[in-house]
Amino acid sequence: MRLPRGIYGITDTSYTVKSHVDAARAFLEGGVRIIQYRRKEGSIRILLEEARAIRRLCNEYGAVFIVDDRIDIAILSDADGVHVGLDDAPVDEIRRRFSGLVIGASASTVDEAIQGENAGANYIGAGSVFPSPTRPDYRVTGLVGLRNIVQSVSIPVYAIGGITLESIPAIKATGAWGAAVISGILAAKDPVKMARAFVEAWENA
Amino acid sequence: MRLPRGIYGITDTSYTVKSHVDAARAFLEGGVRIIQYRRKEGSIRILLEEARAIRRLCNEYGAVFIVDDRIDIAILSDADGVHVGLDDAPVDEIRRRFSGLVIGASASTVDEAIQGENAGANYIGAGSVFPSPTRPDYRVTGLVGLRNIVQSVSIPVYAIGGITLESIPAIKATGAWGAAVISGILAAKDPVKMARAFVEAWENA
Ligand code: NI
Repeated sequence: MRLPRGIYGITDTSYTVKSHVDAARAFLEGGVRIIQYRRKEGSIRILLEEARAIRRLCNEYGAVFIVDDRIDIAILSDADGVHVGLDDAPVDEIRRRFSGLVIGASASTVDEAIQGENAGANYIGAGSVFPSPTRPDYRVTGLVGLRNIVQSVSIPVYAIGGITLESIPAIKATGAWGAAVISGILAAKDPVKMARAFVEAWENA
Repeated sequence: MRLPRGIYGITDTSYTVKSHVDAARAFLEGGVRIIQYRRKEGSIRILLEEARAIRRLCNEYGAVFIVDDRIDIAILSDADGVHVGLDDAPVDEIRRRFSGLVIGASASTVDEAIQGENAGANYIGAGSVFPSPTRPDYRVTGLVGLRNIVQSVSIPVYAIGGITLESIPAIKATGAWGAAVISGILAAKDPVKMARAFVEAWENA
């Protein structure tokens, strides 16, 4: 599975868009080609229905589909992969049992990134690069910390956390594979237009 | 995987026993040989740690280990199987992707039981047989309903819901493979002793 460079969209319903499926659609229409379904609560049946709807949308757009945390939902929705944080299931345990899944691992330090790569992760989600409105409690890496992480592993690194349209050139300049965006796109009045602006900002940076 | 006849213990922390691992240990020390870990909330990491602890205990006692709902936790803890309700992931979808898992399916009617068997379930959890203190909202089958379910499928049927020591002979007389017990054992002053009493009541019925 080739992981697309550029903007990585993560679903959220705290902003303009009111459903995870609509969030995914906005990202995709705007040109984003890797989507993460991140929903923390709800019954398995509801998570599964949404994940499947987003899987179908990603197929239409030729996009990669990742599920946050829930390996069961990832497998049952035929997702391409799963993203796990440091408090979730250990990467090596997932790799051992689900060899076909793309595994993304969160890291906020070089040590965590190397640990994720050694455990079998296919990419790193590195951050928060900037103080994030979505995750105010997260450790901030800054651009220097991000660059250190990028240089410490050989797998793709998506930057995450507080990334705005204006910061895209600086993110790309660190050598990051891409930038994960939530509120930067989903809090916009027109999320499709904003997604397109992010995609173009990355391409033109 | 041979499913053991008799008492099926489901973990709960609402009663005497204050942790899921201790609940499993009480069942096992009392002679129960199939345990379901049923915990609805908590991070994946915590669920996984508990599930693994119960898996190890079940190995020591030669017992079957089932996880409620969470296929991810079941797989990552090397559980023997997963139990799913009507609102959880569809049995046929689980069967198709996890051919090695024992799948238990809940049913409160003959139609649901047949549907579960046809979808690939390995056993049925049938009930509530009696009004249940654990699940007051569940449809009650009564002993006649339970017998109808038992006679409608060829897979093992564990009765569940409000089962007491006194009702074990009537449950066994329906042809049920076993009886799932939660509060009947875990609300007892001495759960190990009560588990043993249930196991013996089944054997002697
Ligand atoms: Ni997570």
